Amino acid sequence: MYDLARTLRDAPRSITGTGVRATLSSISDHLPLRVHEVPSGTPVLDWTVPPEWNVKEAWLAAPDGTRVADWSRNPLHLMGYSTPIRARVDLKDLAPHLYSLPDRPTLIPYRTSYYVRTWGFCLSDEVRRTLPDGEYEVCVDATLDDAGSLSYGEVFFPGSVDEQVLISTHVCHPVMANDNLSGIVVATALGGWICQQPRHWSYRILFVPGTIGSITWLARNRQASAGIRAGLVLTGLGDRAGFTYKRSRRGASWTDRVMEHVLSEAGEETRIVDFSPYGYDERQYCSPGFDLPIGRLTRSSHGEYAEYHTSGDDLDFITPYQLEGSLSVLRRVVEIFETDRRYVNTHPFGEPNLGRRGLYRQVGGAVDQRSVELGYLWMLSQSDGDHSLLDVARRSGLAYDALRSASLALVEAGLLTDVGSAAR
Amino acid sequence: MYDLARTLRDAPRSITGTGVRATLSSISDHLPLRVHEVPSGTPVLDWTVPPEWNVKEAWLAAPDGTRVADWSRNPLHLMGYSTPIRARVDLKDLAPHLYSLPDRPTLIPYRTSYYVRTWGFCLSDEVRRTLPDGEYEVCVDATLDDAGSLSYGEVFFPGSVDEQVLISTHVCHPVMANDNLSGIVVATALGGWICQQPRHWSYRILFVPGTIGSITWLARNRQASAGIRAGLVLTGLGDRAGFTYKRSRRGASWTDRVMEHVLSEAGEETRIVDFSPYGYDERQYCSPGFDLPIGRLTRSSHGEYAEYHTSGDDLDFITPYQLEGSLSVLRRVVEIFETDRRYVNTHPFGEPNLGRRGLYRQVGGAVDQRSVELGYLWMLSQSDGDHSLLDVARRSGLAYDALRSASLALVEAGLLTDVGSAAR
Amino acid sequence: MYDLARTLRDAPRSITGTGVRATLSSISDHLPLRVHEVPSGTPVLDWTVPPEWNVKEAWLAAPDGTRVADWSRNPLHLMGYSTPIRARVDLKDLAPHLYSLPDRPTLIPYRTSYYVRTWGFCLSDEVRRTLPDGEYEVCVDATLDDAGSLSYGEVFFPGSVDEQVLISTHVCHPVMANDNLSGIVVATALGGWICQQPRHWSYRILFVPGTIGSITWLARNRQASAGIRAGLVLTGLGDRAGFTYKRSRRGASWTDRVMEHVLSEAGEETRIVDFSPYGYDERQYCSPGFDLPIGRLTRSSHGEYAEYHTSGDDLDFITPYQLEGSLSVLRRVVEIFETDRRYVNTHPFGEPNLGRRGLYRQVGGAVDQRSVELGYLWMLSQSDGDHSLLDVARRSGLAYDALRSASLALVEAGLLTDVGSAAR
Repeated sequence: MYDLARTLRDAPRSITGTGVRATLSSISDHLPLRVHEVPSGTPVLDWTVPPEWNVKEAWLAAPDGTRVADWSRNPLHLMGYSTPIRARVDLKDLAPHLYSLPDRPTLIPYRTSYYVRTWGFCLSDEVRRTLPDGEYEVCVDATLDDAGSLSYGEVFFPGSVDEQVLISTHVCHPVMANDNLSGIVVATALGGWICQQPRHWSYRILFVPGTIGSITWLARNRQASAGIRAGLVLTGLGDRAGFTYKRSRRGASWTDRVMEHVLSEAGEETRIVDFSPYGYDERQYCSPGFDLPIGRLTRSSHGEYAEYHTSGDDLDFITPYQLEGSLSVLRRVVEIFETDRRYVNTHPFGEPNLGRRGLYRQVGGAVDQRSVELGYLWMLSQSDGDHSLLDVARRSGLAYDALRSASLALVEAGLLTDVGSAAR
Repeated sequence: MYDLARTLRDAPRSITGTGVRATLSSISDHLPLRVHEVPSGTPVLDWTVPPEWNVKEAWLAAPDGTRVADWSRNPLHLMGYSTPIRARVDLKDLAPHLYSLPDRPTLIPYRTSYYVRTWGFCLSDEVRRTLPDGEYEVCVDATLDDAGSLSYGEVFFPGSVDEQVLISTHVCHPVMANDNLSGIVVATALGGWICQQPRHWSYRILFVPGTIGSITWLARNRQASAGIRAGLVLTGLGDRAGFTYKRSRRGASWTDRVMEHVLSEAGEETRIVDFSPYGYDERQYCSPGFDLPIGRLTRSSHGEYAEYHTSGDDLDFITPYQLEGSLSVLRRVVEIFETDRRYVNTHPFGEPNLGRRGLYRQVGGAVDQRSVELGYLWMLSQSDGDHSLLDVARRSGLAYDALRSASLALVEAGLLTDVGSAAR
Repeated sequence: MYDLARTLRDAPRSITGTGVRATLSSISDHLPLRVHEVPSGTPVLDWTVPPEWNVKEAWLAAPDGTRVADWSRNPLHLMGYSTPIRARVDLKDLAPHLYSLPDRPTLIPYRTSYYVRTWGFCLSDEVRRTLPDGEYEVCVDATLDDAGSLSYGEVFFPGSVDEQVLISTHVCHPVMANDNLSGIVVATALGGWICQQPRHWSYRILFVPGTIGSITWLARNRQASAGIRAGLVLTGLGDRAGFTYKRSRRGASWTDRVMEHVLSEAGEETRIVDFSPYGYDERQYCSPGFDLPIGRLTRSSHGEYAEYHTSGDDLDFITPYQLEGSLSVLRRVVEIFETDRRYVNTHPFGEPNLGRRGLYRQVGGAVDQRSVELGYLWMLSQSDGDHSLLDVARRSGLAYDALRSASLALVEAGLLTDVGSAAR
């Protein structure tokens, strides 16, 4: 994953353009990605697909000719969606077009202006404070093409049912590692793993530009969205903090319950936060008309670290170890999505005779309660077709996997009938 | 308010009689009060309006002629509803008719005997303990008139709907300041303010003798009572303690939720207590047949302070500052009663494009979440026609007023539709 | 009770056989017990009544002829349901048939093998460790009779309704005092007391072999079981610990609420634990097909004390004082089962005039709230036909008995109507 992040770093991503396409193309080396191109001007829900933006070169030269900002050196130097300009501008007139962070003077900020036509340059405050008076040369050689398109990638792994789990990550942030290379590479690796698993659910993984990308997908897939039974928005999965799970708008959806369970056994510090309508693409998936059971998994959350949306969020800010830990949690999530099923006890009157079926100790009287027997008893007690493995795990305090083994043995013995997934 | 309290102090209030009438008359100088006279003997629910009680003079003279208790000096000296008597009584026979407070020896207690015919005098224990043996002269020149009536006052401010907010305060306690002059003057001032406001709800303010007055009003207004959507019993609003709100019997009525919100932002120590069927007129309004959404606001609660129901509850016990603070809270309560509305998001699929409507920042990427934008997002996310502004304030942690501004802007932009008050 | 425990101690109980019969016969001296005999081989739910097991003699002799284990000395020496054998066995071949407790070397463990045919001896680890090598003589002169039967006892005290309270205790453990003589003697004493009380409910007390006995009763009484409105499994009621109540599977059944109330006022340390499907016969009564409102009362719970299921659980381990305390709690439970009723306020509009009915203080104004008046007010406020005395006690914080007195006085005054038991 870390290698892929290194490969993807330099594609100059934005919400449209060649950078996204290059990114999707690299992902295609690992996943059977279908890339969609949606023409600029297409109405999508309450929005319109913007013109495609591409940059040839962009720089800002001081009176002595030094390039104090240069897109080719670091795409962050140029505000996203800057309009073309070639001009000589006095420093004081330049001021409203310059962005820096006085509280973090060594970092270059990340700024965009997708829907208001303007241009701008981002610099470290260190550099900005030393800019001499005089006339600067401004060059933004960029195109905003109304005949262009918005690109997004989609992978679909069919399962034994049409209902789906949706995984979504954004692909529009240039350079930065935690936000958002980490999400891209973890989603890619997760897809590679899912691909090799037997599947109850179908899985759909989306690589979309933030906001406009998820809106575009939702606009084009209203019907498919109705089949989504669980899902996650992934991003910020590479930094050194523990996990933060943000609940879906529903607040007690199956996704939420599975995530809380998995994180409780993850062995890392974790934090569960309630839904709020600010953040990443969960804003769109959880908008009240769709109200999908989709939460968000990150480590640090947006805006919580000094490096957020700056040049400080570089490859050193994320680690292979954290990426691996994130993937590991997600594999476990998928495992529970697949196996959290509901059962019905076929012998509900009295305890069935487990000993006769070889499922119970032969000598009575001893104190120790073997957890495998407890698992049988709990599953028999709670399997009313409504409570799932996860519910029984929560109520009994027994391990999910122990209950899963118990339930499979009980199905084998004809004492439980599987009546479907926990998600209906 | 404090001046009005001073004016009202000396009217010798009881549950009937000239003292109540004089009190209502003074209130009429400030509010368009309608005074009702209900004849003695009228059946009201399970009760009967009692004979009207008026006192000409009443005193108790020691063997040496000193008047150790005198109604004209302080109405508390005479037990309320004392029957007429003119007699010479030996001290030991007098004892069952004397009331004092050994644990608070300087204070004269307040006692009544509305429904059992007897007479009595109330003295400070200091005085009582020094009474010499011998024969005392007892004079109660009072009338209990079966042809009299019970008086209560009612103000009605029509709003744009017939449904009402009810404010009720009792007007039967003689002399005492916190219980109950404070309630009378705050209700009067609140009425004066409501009168000048545009109103969604109609408002009804009742000035009634305790228990029998509210019972009488309920008996005569069964139909009107069905239109009550919120309400408060007011009393004890002048002492130096923080607020106590006692919930309605329903326990989670809109009144209860509004009061809890307002008190949480009041900047004074506050206490929320559950409903209990003992107290003031909320006993009647919340009786199970009516079960109105009416709570009670006080500062100290009945029986919690040494001066309660004694001569110690005088004008020094209450302060203009506390009265003003109480009025201020009640104005805020009315403001929320008026504005706590429910909305429906007209663009529930995905986020509507707020930037296009001038409702969102133009430059993206910065960390700070402007609270006005958060207000838009929360209102759009939660406006399902069911959750009101107050619900969104509670869930989001945003200020009520910020959400109110946000919702008005969103209605203006056509993104929300107002579907009615939080109270239905 | 302690005397009865002493009497019952030596009957060699198991799940069938003469020991159980002798035990039931002793109980018959105190209660009108009906003893049922169910033939071996009878199918009961998912089980089959086992052959009847009886022992003539059983011992294990060391090479020098010393009897190191002897059933006639202590029935615990022989594993329950041991098959007949007469043989000479080398110590090393004997090992799999010997049971001891290395962590509690002085105690003889209790072991059974009801459903797998084998034999075994139980010894203190002290003795076992000193067994010399050599050939041992093994004698189990026992019968497993397919033409035998399973015995259980049943007492039925009819009440004014057919619906029942079920009390169940097991009668299959040999020798041991807390588990299970204490349950037997407390249930017997409770039955003797119930017999003398006027009864709303019918009461059924079962003395059954563990597991197979309750399964047998349920199999033969499916219809009767549907009329059970409350119940308890009793055992472990004689040791020096406080009470443990284990909730029914439903978790908030009337039994659960009554037990939590009674234990909260019992003046002993108490512990309430959630249902789990492991334990005593509540496993059967609360199996999901029956799901009866039956909890379990013990002091220490199974497996929580070192003496559990060993020779250490002898008559010194239980005390007359603890048995009496347990009985006292159970009498109170029955009292609340009998009296926890629901009422309807016949005068719900406003407070009824209690003073006129002699139910309220005559002189008003004093601070003290007499609890009897509070009782009237609370009952009138909450009596909607749904909330019972216990509910009102919980909400008001008033004593159950005070509310019971208040409700009887209000019924007398025509202000409340009794509409039935809390359990429906």
